[in-house]
Amino acid sequence: MPIVQIDMLEGRSVDQKRAMVAKVTEAIVETANCTPEVVTVIIREMPTTNLGKAGKLRSDM
Amino acid sequence: MPIVQIDMLEGRSVDQKRAMVAKVTEAIVETANCTPEVVTVIIREMPTTNLGKAGKLRSDM
Amino acid sequence: MPIVQIDMLEGRSVDQKRAMVAKVTEAIVETANCTPEVVTVIIREMPTTNLGKAGKLRSDM
Amino acid sequence: MPIVQIDMLEGRSVDQKRAMVAKVTEAIVETANCTPEVVTVIIREMPTTNLGKAGKLRSDM
Amino acid sequence: MPIVQIDMLEGRSVDQKRAMVAKVTEAIVETANCTPEVVTVIIREMPTTNLGKAGKLRSDM
Amino acid sequence: MPIVQIDMLEGRSVDQKRAMVAKVTEAIVETANCTPEVVTVIIREMPTTNLGKAGKLRSDM
Repeated sequence: MPIVQIDMLEGRSVDQKRAMVAKVTEAIVETANCTPEVVTVIIREMPTTNLGKAGKLRSDM
Repeated sequence: MPIVQIDMLEGRSVDQKRAMVAKVTEAIVETANCTPEVVTVIIREMPTTNLGKAGKLRSDM
Repeated sequence: MPIVQIDMLEGRSVDQKRAMVAKVTEAIVETANCTPEVVTVIIREMPTTNLGKAGKLRSDM
Repeated sequence: MPIVQIDMLEGRSVDQKRAMVAKVTEAIVETANCTPEVVTVIIREMPTTNLGKAGKLRSDM
Repeated sequence: MPIVQIDMLEGRSVDQKRAMVAKVTEAIVETANCTPEVVTVIIREMPTTNLGKAGKLRSDM
Repeated sequence: MPIVQIDMLEGRSVDQKRAMVAKVTEAIVETANCTPEVVTVIIREMPTTNLGKAGKLRSDM
């Protein structure tokens, strides 16, 4: 039942997301010893105004 | 203080969300032995291009 | 595919968790218009030293 | 490596988010004994139709 | 800055987690077009009494 | 209603957590324009074997 939540900046294409889901699922299946059917991947995207690193908004960097 | 986070595909109506919040809160109150006032429910919606199952994007299924 | 994450203080019995999973799933099924099979519930428990409300640790209240 | 996720209602300005990231990071650095460089802050915003409190949608209150 | 959170049942060895972190990071790097240095992976484990599927506790299945 | 979730390595003292909750709440109150009463802080701790950075387990670094 592994559930994978990925938070990242918005802007990736559907093709990138498709490849991401395929490869991340494969990585989980190989290492967690489970079938692909039980793996769920959720992608959450955020604008650069909603991410902070080292005390600064990403949109200001 | 139970905090309930629900991730689901976008597309439900406000009426569905209203009923969901009411019934999920009731379920928590009955089983966690707390008052409704301390229960918070957050609904997060995603497009079908941001959900993967069995290594495939939901938008491709 | 609704995924429900519940954060709460530790201390509930397995019987309470069993009832919680059953009733919360039922609440989701009735309002999200889906089957029980696609509903996942994750319960996360924390000690009172890891929860803050109004700027105070719960263990100090 | 502290990762801080903040869920709140939408509507804050970029200036508010900028100040939030700066001050929250400072609070973590002072108390977790780490450098600002390792602190990540993610802000997630939701509409009032996606938040429930005491069994009621925030948009109905 | 992708942040990957993996929720799964407890019981995997450190070797499995080491391989999981390596392969999941590789999958993100290849598809999100970023360097490994910016990828963080958090593994959260839960007992079978804290997971529900189809309205039933995993520990009862 | 801001809800703040902090993921960090285990090992901080209760005094550090107490200060963290107080200061983070203050930072949110000042910048989100809300009262302390509506701010919830959840601290989640993990062992170094459950954190990966740049493809490596923290426990190996």
